[in-house]
Amino acid sequence: MNGSSFGKAYNITTFGESHGEAIGVIIQGCPPGMILTEQIIQKELDERKPGFGRISSDRKEPDRAIILSGIFNNMTTGTPITIIIENRDSDSTAYQKNKNIFRPGHGDITYWAKYGIRDHRGGGRASARETAARVAAGAVALNILNEYDINIDTYTIELGGIKVKTIDREFTRTNYLKCPDRNALKSMEREIEHIRQQGDSIGGVVEICAANVPAGLGDPVFDKLDADIAKALMGIGAVKAVEIGAGCNAARLKGSENNDQITDKGFLTNNSGGILAGISNGDKIIVRVSIKPIPSIKIPMKTIDDKGRPLEIITGGRHDISAIPRINAVCKAMMAITITDHLLRQEINK
Amino acid sequence: MNGSSFGKAYNITTFGESHGEAIGVIIQGCPPGMILTEQIIQKELDERKPGFGRISSDRKEPDRAIILSGIFNNMTTGTPITIIIENRDSDSTAYQKNKNIFRPGHGDITYWAKYGIRDHRGGGRASARETAARVAAGAVALNILNEYDINIDTYTIELGGIKVKTIDREFTRTNYLKCPDRNALKSMEREIEHIRQQGDSIGGVVEICAANVPAGLGDPVFDKLDADIAKALMGIGAVKAVEIGAGCNAARLKGSENNDQITDKGFLTNNSGGILAGISNGDKIIVRVSIKPIPSIKIPMKTIDDKGRPLEIITGGRHDISAIPRINAVCKAMMAITITDHLLRQEINK
Amino acid sequence: MNGSSFGKAYNITTFGESHGEAIGVIIQGCPPGMILTEQIIQKELDERKPGFGRISSDRKEPDRAIILSGIFNNMTTGTPITIIIENRDSDSTAYQKNKNIFRPGHGDITYWAKYGIRDHRGGGRASARETAARVAAGAVALNILNEYDINIDTYTIELGGIKVKTIDREFTRTNYLKCPDRNALKSMEREIEHIRQQGDSIGGVVEICAANVPAGLGDPVFDKLDADIAKALMGIGAVKAVEIGAGCNAARLKGSENNDQITDKGFLTNNSGGILAGISNGDKIIVRVSIKPIPSIKIPMKTIDDKGRPLEIITGGRHDISAIPRINAVCKAMMAITITDHLLRQEINK
Amino acid sequence: MNGSSFGKAYNITTFGESHGEAIGVIIQGCPPGMILTEQIIQKELDERKPGFGRISSDRKEPDRAIILSGIFNNMTTGTPITIIIENRDSDSTAYQKNKNIFRPGHGDITYWAKYGIRDHRGGGRASARETAARVAAGAVALNILNEYDINIDTYTIELGGIKVKTIDREFTRTNYLKCPDRNALKSMEREIEHIRQQGDSIGGVVEICAANVPAGLGDPVFDKLDADIAKALMGIGAVKAVEIGAGCNAARLKGSENNDQITDKGFLTNNSGGILAGISNGDKIIVRVSIKPIPSIKIPMKTIDDKGRPLEIITGGRHDISAIPRINAVCKAMMAITITDHLLRQEINK
Repeated sequence: MNGSSFGKAYNITTFGESHGEAIGVIIQGCPPGMILTEQIIQKELDERKPGFGRISSDRKEPDRAIILSGIFNNMTTGTPITIIIENRDSDSTAYQKNKNIFRPGHGDITYWAKYGIRDHRGGGRASARETAARVAAGAVALNILNEYDINIDTYTIELGGIKVKTIDREFTRTNYLKCPDRNALKSMEREIEHIRQQGDSIGGVVEICAANVPAGLGDPVFDKLDADIAKALMGIGAVKAVEIGAGCNAARLKGSENNDQITDKGFLTNNSGGILAGISNGDKIIVRVSIKPIPSIKIPMKTIDDKGRPLEIITGGRHDISAIPRINAVCKAMMAITITDHLLRQEINK
Repeated sequence: MNGSSFGKAYNITTFGESHGEAIGVIIQGCPPGMILTEQIIQKELDERKPGFGRISSDRKEPDRAIILSGIFNNMTTGTPITIIIENRDSDSTAYQKNKNIFRPGHGDITYWAKYGIRDHRGGGRASARETAARVAAGAVALNILNEYDINIDTYTIELGGIKVKTIDREFTRTNYLKCPDRNALKSMEREIEHIRQQGDSIGGVVEICAANVPAGLGDPVFDKLDADIAKALMGIGAVKAVEIGAGCNAARLKGSENNDQITDKGFLTNNSGGILAGISNGDKIIVRVSIKPIPSIKIPMKTIDDKGRPLEIITGGRHDISAIPRINAVCKAMMAITITDHLLRQEINK
Repeated sequence: MNGSSFGKAYNITTFGESHGEAIGVIIQGCPPGMILTEQIIQKELDERKPGFGRISSDRKEPDRAIILSGIFNNMTTGTPITIIIENRDSDSTAYQKNKNIFRPGHGDITYWAKYGIRDHRGGGRASARETAARVAAGAVALNILNEYDINIDTYTIELGGIKVKTIDREFTRTNYLKCPDRNALKSMEREIEHIRQQGDSIGGVVEICAANVPAGLGDPVFDKLDADIAKALMGIGAVKAVEIGAGCNAARLKGSENNDQITDKGFLTNNSGGILAGISNGDKIIVRVSIKPIPSIKIPMKTIDDKGRPLEIITGGRHDISAIPRINAVCKAMMAITITDHLLRQEINK
Repeated sequence: MNGSSFGKAYNITTFGESHGEAIGVIIQGCPPGMILTEQIIQKELDERKPGFGRISSDRKEPDRAIILSGIFNNMTTGTPITIIIENRDSDSTAYQKNKNIFRPGHGDITYWAKYGIRDHRGGGRASARETAARVAAGAVALNILNEYDINIDTYTIELGGIKVKTIDREFTRTNYLKCPDRNALKSMEREIEHIRQQGDSIGGVVEICAANVPAGLGDPVFDKLDADIAKALMGIGAVKAVEIGAGCNAARLKGSENNDQITDKGFLTNNSGGILAGISNGDKIIVRVSIKPIPSIKIPMKTIDDKGRPLEIITGGRHDISAIPRINAVCKAMMAITITDHLLRQEINK
């Protein structure tokens, strides 16, 4: 029931399977009169593309954004913007032999339970490829946020158990892992090589920081800004935890420690992560997501087929070793979409 | 923009301020022909009431559920069910002196930023009192889930930094802190007394377990079951993190460890927390929420007033020391509402 | 599925049965900082009250508006506004004897088919009494429109087959039938007396005119302003036809006659009824609704009971002879709600 | 704000401008496991195509349906179904010379007022071409309704003032005007020829009949089945009035005439048009829509340009003389979509 739609004022609907004709997105609510080109969208899509160093697969996805509607003379018209990305490098023969088998850690078994039918080719609708459509919609949102001088940054603060100790935003931009700590980067790269040799996979933690968000965004009591951010990010396949500000650690602080005291120059701390009572407070919005390891590995795992017969399967093919760093672009997109939605929603209260 | 509504097939809208006439909820989508009485709702409301031992305030809130519509001869009719709870013990004179001051850790400053006006009495709409309406709506949802033999349990697995080591569900029911570990309970009680003397407050972690949920619930790709659960729980004022299954720890596991292998007798592990690719897999749904400490404490904190003038404030009055254990009932309610919503949504796919 | 909610930016949810505890409405989306009192709401409610001359029943419904939430110091706060109207004069014993019989022209048989259960007392949820909640929500909308100098007028242009020949707005305000034509009024009054003696009932046509609506309201392609107006008005129980501008007659005009030519001083005609391609054009919005006769009459009619047994029934008790003039207030309310919704929606395009 | 989406359980979102890359639709909520091919969709699209006799333009629109997602091995999978129709015969040079001029009767002036920018090529988003996407979504709905043995018929009951006197459904299928009366057809054809010579255009009335709809569909009080039908049909560009059952004439009947008496064999009459209190009663659903004449004619009309300068314009190019008969397919589609939506919504009450 509308499960492929997200947002109220800035509303997106994605569609498509990894081995169908195309994936794509319709965007409703983008204000009219803004410059928008395929190049602006392509720039974000390129952030998600595979082929980064040795962590990601060599699958070639050109992921070229094609705008079908909503733009006239490179300007938004206020009508729905449709962007599609054709599936070109989608050889599905590799999936043929396991078409009746539920890959562990994947949605095969639950799609089967839900729909009684599933497109077994490459995860079908559950494929991470779907997130390219979100990144396209996120690019349009980022384009809007840019007009408000709001910017969103993401970086890898943990990978395979290795945590960063410093956050150097400049350094983040220099490495494909989006790691903000030069020392941690080296350890991460060693861990990747180690895991690759094992045929296994790893997860990690991504932090998202939205700066310059005006105070006042978020609709109590259910559409709180943090509630919508949590939904947006938990809705990314690999995410298993979402923390705002102090997050899990807030449970271990006393009130006197956790309260962000206020001065005429602003808040003294930011344990709230920029959101108080579900409404942005003008401070940086800080969110962390925990990413599970990619389920497709080169190690045999127990499973069953659609007749319930037990067997073993090796699901790793040309797969990434970690959803990081590519998932950074998806987190950025979903954050941008959520903030844009609430930015436009707040127009009504003015 | 509809921010006080939640759910699509099972849809609730709450209203009311802590010191207004009443708070309440309208429920749309409850199937017709079910027995429903004020007693059924009252039972859950009583789980949220104050006065539990020494952790909560002595504020008296009878919180009596009154059904205004949707019920005929103790049966649901399929029309909107409205439940109100009158505000009786709402002496707002205590709030008068701080009416222009933003209490740190509270939504005072953000409501002001958003709306340009705020009901300063007891937090107004941002008051935890609003959650009583959710508990009432949750009681109706639990009544539905009961017909499907689905049950939801919650328990305190951490308080003030003290973690439980065992989960004894029976023991949970015997103590007001809903602590499932006899030894941890004693430490928690000592910590409460310690914090009370300091005039400070503490947070903790609550785990929610939904058992017997059928496989197939959840609407990809944005209305994933875990995404909606994350929104439902992050939308509770004090919650700063939501974890599903292995949660934050999933980021430190390898794929070979994290994948829940499948046998003809079920899954060997439950790192997924009962949800794969956003759809329930038939296993227990396990969710943890991190609760921040109550912001109202008896220790002076820096803040400003609505003219931006700096000052110090002590906000602690007759407040709880922790949102735990009372928040357990709210978590249970939001989980019940979310699962009921998806249970009814799935009817359409059958 | 949310069937009792209407509107996106200005969103209302009504609840209640005619013989339950209370009926009411929750309003989401009313901008903060506006003066709002029970008196402002009461004024519109009084327009709908019974007891007008000889056309309406002598049922006493004080219909007193009580605000439960969303208002602080007589100002809107941006949070949900809840208004209830208690059911006081609701003697349901009269309905007891026909509780298993489907009254012809009423929703008894369809509620039974839909829900398998129905509140037989006075039409339950299908009672015209529910529209009082709409009038309350309409009063809040009119209060907002007033700030934009938009005003909405309604008048009876046909009753029992008698059509008005002139539209004298001033005269409309002087008579309880809201008839804008002095001569027609006399004929209408004679017809009412005639029908009363027969124990029968009559319908008519109400015209609604919204003046000073800015150009640019309405969201193509499905949420066109006229489409939403059509839904809003057809959703009033007694309405069987909705016409915009030239309406049915547009089908008989040539393009050269129907096109509203444009000059630098405005449109030469208003066949469009102020809406072009679903968007307001700045001209007066003109809508007509055809009202069926009240189904409850003092003449025996064939029907069946819930066991399918045929019988005859006389349903007329203390009922009105026509939904006119009371329905005028409901039409005005629904028009106000729809325009307010689109007025606020348009804020996002600015 | 989501204005291009329609429906709750069966939800469609259309996109596209008449001279953009493509138009199309995303369908959410189609049950899984149903056979669906491009041929099934094409069949309905062909009903809308131009080139019918002398009433329609000779514009060539192949309107070929291409399915991008949601189908696997010719079966629906429960995921969003996307259908696009590429714009091939879209020569926009003809629109270049009038790009700053507001064509009377068209949405040019209101799109300008709303968005401050408009795609002037062929009406852009306001083009009747957008309805092809609705017809595609309607074909999928009809495919679902077919499983329930529900069928929808439409026919032209009035054209250019000429009314049919008999309804011969078989005869309807034999003529391109979908006229159910052999005598009326001849008069209509003469009128068309007459109007063509004048360079003018005409409107008419289409009746839609849905047979075998089960009792119980429709969600009181705002999402009444007739309210949603009214919105669905009034949202078609050329429609200016929607009538259910007795429609406008209900205003002239007495209660004793209008009430559909009930026997154990069914209703004696069908003045209600198959809908009582907003819920289907099992009888045929009968709806009539009044269609305005096509605004593009070969007769000069007064208008202004976007600087407000007065001038005269002839807008007729290769345009139809009437929206009839092509609009029949659109009415059928919108009716099918609305009934399918409520059919699926009712699953939840079972």
